[in-house]
This record gives sequence, C-alpha cells and structure tokens, in this order.
Amino acid sequence: MTQDRAGIAQRAGDLLDAMRSARPLVQNITNFVSMDTAANALLALGASPAMVHSAEEAGDFAARADSLVVNTGTLSQPFLEGGETAATAAHMLGRPWVLDPVGVGGGKFRNDAVLRLLRHRPSVIRGNASEIISIARVSGLHADGAAPRGVDSAHSTDAALVTAQHLAHHCFCVVAATGAVDLVTDGRRVVRLANGHELMTRVTALGCALSAVVAAFCAVSEDAFEATVSALAVYGVAGEMAAELAQRPGSYRVAFMDMLDAITAADVAARLKVL
Amino acid sequence: MTQDRAGIAQRAGDLLDAMRSARPLVQNITNFVSMDTAANALLALGASPAMVHSAEEAGDFAARADSLVVNTGTLSQPFLEGGETAATAAHMLGRPWVLDPVGVGGGKFRNDAVLRLLRHRPSVIRGNASEIISIARVSGLHADGAAPRGVDSAHSTDAALVTAQHLAHHCFCVVAATGAVDLVTDGRRVVRLANGHELMTRVTALGCALSAVVAAFCAVSEDAFEATVSALAVYGVAGEMAAELAQRPGSYRVAFMDMLDAITAADVAARLKVL
Amino acid sequence: MTQDRAGIAQRAGDLLDAMRSARPLVQNITNFVSMDTAANALLALGASPAMVHSAEEAGDFAARADSLVVNTGTLSQPFLEGGETAATAAHMLGRPWVLDPVGVGGGKFRNDAVLRLLRHRPSVIRGNASEIISIARVSGLHADGAAPRGVDSAHSTDAALVTAQHLAHHCFCVVAATGAVDLVTDGRRVVRLANGHELMTRVTALGCALSAVVAAFCAVSEDAFEATVSALAVYGVAGEMAAELAQRPGSYRVAFMDMLDAITAADVAARLKVL
Repeated sequence: MTQDRAGIAQRAGDLLDAMRSARPLVQNITNFVSMDTAANALLALGASPAMVHSAEEAGDFAARADSLVVNTGTLSQPFLEGGETAATAAHMLGRPWVLDPVGVGGGKFRNDAVLRLLRHRPSVIRGNASEIISIARVSGLHADGAAPRGVDSAHSTDAALVTAQHLAHHCFCVVAATGAVDLVTDGRRVVRLANGHELMTRVTALGCALSAVVAAFCAVSEDAFEATVSALAVYGVAGEMAAELAQRPGSYRVAFMDMLDAITAADVAARLKVL
Repeated sequence: MTQDRAGIAQRAGDLLDAMRSARPLVQNITNFVSMDTAANALLALGASPAMVHSAEEAGDFAARADSLVVNTGTLSQPFLEGGETAATAAHMLGRPWVLDPVGVGGGKFRNDAVLRLLRHRPSVIRGNASEIISIARVSGLHADGAAPRGVDSAHSTDAALVTAQHLAHHCFCVVAATGAVDLVTDGRRVVRLANGHELMTRVTALGCALSAVVAAFCAVSEDAFEATVSALAVYGVAGEMAAELAQRPGSYRVAFMDMLDAITAADVAARLKVL
Repeated sequence: MTQDRAGIAQRAGDLLDAMRSARPLVQNITNFVSMDTAANALLALGASPAMVHSAEEAGDFAARADSLVVNTGTLSQPFLEGGETAATAAHMLGRPWVLDPVGVGGGKFRNDAVLRLLRHRPSVIRGNASEIISIARVSGLHADGAAPRGVDSAHSTDAALVTAQHLAHHCFCVVAATGAVDLVTDGRRVVRLANGHELMTRVTALGCALSAVVAAFCAVSEDAFEATVSALAVYGVAGEMAAELAQRPGSYRVAFMDMLDAITAADVAARLKVL
C-alpha cells in the first residue's frame, strides 16, 4: 500500500467498489445498543449484515460468513460464549475478524473477556484511544494514560500511538485507534486520517458500526491494514459529507446513513485527509 | 374475499380503518435488531405494541394481547422458551399468531426451534422466499431451491409458489412469501401483490416489522388470509409512497414510518398492484 | 424551589446548563427497545450514557457513574439481578437513581421485581399514570383505578395525584406521573406541567428515555424534586418544539432528538406551561 494520500484514497475507493460488488456477509456479535445501527450501516454501504450471536449458532455461522466482528459492549456471559465460539471458528478457517473492545479497562469481567477473545487472534482491534491504551495494559504491555471513565474516550489518538504499535506487534494484528484523528498501524506501517466530524460522537453506536464496516472491508482484501485504512477513510469522509447536510444529532444520524449509501470513490479521492 | 384488484384494495382499506379504530395490542417476541422498528411501525400505523418475551411473562401476557408475533432472529434458548409459551397460550385461547422464521435453514438449532414453534399452529407464516422454501424442507415437505446464505432471500417469490401452497396445506395456515412480489396463499386461494420498493431491502428489520403488522391486521379479521393480504397491501403501498419522499436508506426509513401514519384507504385503492 | 412558573423555568434552565457543563455519566439498565433511544437522547441533550446492565458489572459501574436509571421493560431474571446490584450500590453510595416501572401491574413476575427494586430506595419513580397507580397498589397502598392493559397509560395524570402523593410519602422519594399533563410530587410539593405533544406517544421509548434524562438532571442537583421537574420541563418543551418541525412519527423522532440538542434555557423560559 502506497502510504501517500493519493495512493490511500485510490485503494480505499477500489476496495469500496470491490466490497459493494462482493456484498460480503458480515457476522455481527455486538451489543444491544448498536445492533440496529451496525446492520443499517452495513446495508447502507452495500454489505450484507447477519446478527448471529448465540453460542448455539455463532460457530456454525462463522463458517458461512465472509468476516466477523465481536464487540464487548453490554457484555454478558452468553454473549462472550457466542463471541469466543465464533472467533475460534473464524481464526481456524482463516476468516478475518475484528475485535471492538468496548469499555475495556472498566472492570475484571470485561478485561478477562477481552483477554479470552484476544487468544483467538483478531485480524484487527478497533477502539477509541482510551480503549487501545486499556487493552494494552490489560494484556500486560506498558501503556501510558489513565483508564477511561465510561465508554467515551478520555485520550487523544496521538497519545495512543506508541501503545498501538506495541499492541499490534504483540498481537500480530492491525490496531486502529479512532477519534478526531484516526490512527492505524500494523506495528510497522502507520497511517493517520483526519476526516470525520464531531457530530459522530453525538450519535450512539457509530463507533461500533465502524468496526462492522472494517470487517466488511477485511472481507475483500488479504491485507487487513489496507482494509482497515480504507474502511476508516470511507467512513470518515461519509461523516464529513453528512455534516454538510445536517447539524444536529437526530438528523445527522439519518444523513450519515444516506451518505454511506451515496459515497463514491471520487468522494474519497476529493476529500480524504491524511496527516 | 373477492380476489380482484378492487375487492382486495377495498378490503385492505376497510381493515386498515378497523385496525386503527380497534388499536389492537400486539405482543412481539422478536429479535434485538427489530424491536425498535417493529414497535415504531405498529405505533405509526395505529396499533399498540407490547414487547413481552420472557418465559416468565410471555404466556400470561398472551391472554391479554389481541395477537402475537414470534420471530426467530437472534434466537437463543430463553427467547425460544418465551416464544413457545406465548404461542401455546395464543393457540389455546384462539388468538391469531404469526410466525416469522428468520434464518430458518441456517442450522440445527434454528430449524429445531422453528419445528417446535410450528406445533403451536401459527395462523400465518411470513418470510422471504428462501425462508418459506427452507421451512418447508425442514418440515419434511419437498421443496425446490438451495438453502439461503444469510438472512436475505436468494430466491424469487415465484419460485416459492408451489412450496408455499404445500406448506399452507400441511400447516393449516396462511403462508406469505414476501419480496419484490408478495405471495399469499392459504393453500387454496392465492394472491400476488407487486407494490413495495427496493429501498425496503436496504433498511434492517422492515421484514420483521411487516410480520408485526400482519399480526395487527389478524386481530381485526376472522380470516387470516384476507388479514395478511391487507397488511401486505398497506405495507407495500406505504413503501412506495415513502420512495417518492426519500431515495437513500437513512431518510427512507424515516419517510416509511411517516407513510405508515399517513396512508389511507384511498391510497391503497389508488396504488395497489395485484398481479 | 419557587413553584411559580418563572421560578420553575429559571431553575430548569440553570440545571440544563449545569448538566451540559458537567456531562454526567448516566448508567442505564433499560429494556432492549429503548437502549438506542435513551442513549441518543442523553447524547443529544449533552449527557454521557453508559449502558451497563449485566450483574457481573452493574454494581462496580454504579460506583463510577453519576446517576442510574433502572427500567423494567422487557424484564428478565438476568436484568433484574443487574438492576438490583446497581440499585444497591447507588443507594449505598448516595448516588441518585431513577426507577421506571414499565408495565408494573402486568403480572406477578414484574410486580415482584418492582417491589424488590423499591427496597433499594429510588430517588425518583417515573411512570405513566397507570404505572404510578399500579405501583402503589402493588406496594400495598390504596389506589384508585383499574390496571392497565398494555404498557400505555389508561389513566389521566390527575387521577394519579393522591396516589402519587401517598407513594412519595411511603417511599420517601419523588414521584412523577407523566402524560398529557406531567405531575411531580415529593409528597409535600406538587408541580404540574403541560408541555409535550401527542406525537410523543407515537414513538416508542420516549418515556423510557425521559427517565434517563431525569437521572441526568438528578446528577447535578441535591434536590431530586427540582431535578425531576426541570428534566420534565426541558423534555416537554423540546417535544413541543419538535412538533413545529415534524408532524408524523418517523420525522418527529428525528426532530425531537434535534430539539434536545437545540433547546436552551431561553426556550424553557419562553414556553414552559405550569398549571
């Protein structure tokens, strides 16, 4: 992947088109708050969502899905079992899967759950800066910064850079710390994107839905790093386009879904901001 | 029920008015993704939703509700218990109930669950063509066509016609296979409707919400066949009206809810397409 | 709290500003239907939602949250355990918490659950008039009026006045019975507000989200009575403002979220109706 702006935008546009053609089946094991938003974001963008999380079904379904996202919001024992079952299957079958460690750092139950999920080797970890710092700490890595208070980030993305690189090395995966600036690294390569809009933090579940979108892009590229960068590029540019249509959170949510449908490779080429 | 276009439209309009006057209490045992959308669709259309699914309460509540819908999306053991308890109660009390076999064909757990629910004699089975073909196969009936990949239909409605008729005979119920063309049969009568819009497939949970709307119409007619045809007529016409207001999935979802509120018998009379 | 119109409006505006500055972390243990709407309402208004309900985490999290709301819609044993754990913690730590007894009166399981939650001394009980009458009856207090049929109120707010006062005395808490007229009492003081709009009953979960907003206001005032009155004032005025922008339920929901973001102390001062 060429890491200059033009190359990143080009690749993001190509993968957007490829994803829309392939219409990958993305299995979502996500929290109760974000199921609707994640499913609608995938549909709006052109992927095919499947919300299959029960331990009875999650493993079998992973064999049929093109990729998987496991999210630890509203975590409970049954959801964790479903998540582990699906992640095991995905890992064994070589299917890409994305871990969204919502609220990690917030207590022993969730931290232990995240550690158990990490064993199944996610292709990508996507969280806000505070979650990336917390997941590194929980994994026994040195990490700077205090624990988050709730599910919203208390850290800037830059504060997470070194930690994200350590985590990527340690877990052999791509790490994305998203926020006002989005940071993606596989331990070696680093890309920083600066699209998106403040209103994205005023609508619940848009971070969770982003993780599902990363999984959709991972289904159409062998390189999880470029898939993640491309997903973040498309999502951030759509977020910016939506802010030109709506300035308050209710209508912004609607406009954002519309822009996931409307966005083209040309929009990404014209608007992408790489730092 | 007169099966010509004018007669169907007339009856659909009459039942819409009757349903709005009666404001039936519809018990929903549905998946996590569609609860919000099903409840809002029922409220927009003028019915009264109740989302009561726990095994502790579902049976008692069925005695107070006017009709019931049981949906197998995001299925788990506790939901299945709630669904069976409520379906048993509804059947014993002679209350109409609608089975929405989301994802049937997708594995043993779900297939067994659907078979258990079928024993409680649904008044209506509402699914996409692939689900109708799968439920027939799972029930031991001959059925043409391959199993679906995810929750979206891989079959056209016409492919499901013979299977739907067999299923209706076998289960003594109404079968509705919905899609670009909606097909309704009680084994003897067959109606095909051709309203709706492609954007309805780009918003999650609109199929699930339709099953809830079928349940609302079943509460105001002794004839489950005409109730189902009428519900599909109203829903499809509202879907078409919404597409005149919004062309992308985020705003389409909003417009569709508005049109469920706005639609009148006159709209159905003017726009209904019977094949 | 001065109970004249100007004083109430002034205090509501002050608390709105204080809440937006403090951005309290509100823990939500709420039903599946309302999680998305409650989270988005809190975000739109300027608070910080956290949806943490599992028994494994709810108690620890209550120590970090600024306030808590426990809602009995879609109740199940696991949710009840999470709710009790969190309510115990909140009560012991002196954190305000709001009980939304959705559907109380609807059966033994739910009634028993509400009685168990009441032992942990909520700061505020917020329900519709039928729920307030039912919770009083379930608590062994004399209460007039028949039990509700579903989750929507069968009673006017005025019918609940004497009962609400008894309940407030009995439970040492604030009681709010909301509807076309909102009634708030701590047993001694009584305020009646008359904002809001009929369309609020046509969108699911707006009552549940109101309880979350009451919790957000309780986080910034020692006086749960004035916090509740202020939350209801802001919510009702926002509801009225939204009805000037949208006249059908789909677009009304969007407009209402926008107005929770837009509303200012000046809007409350200009529009508040105190009976």
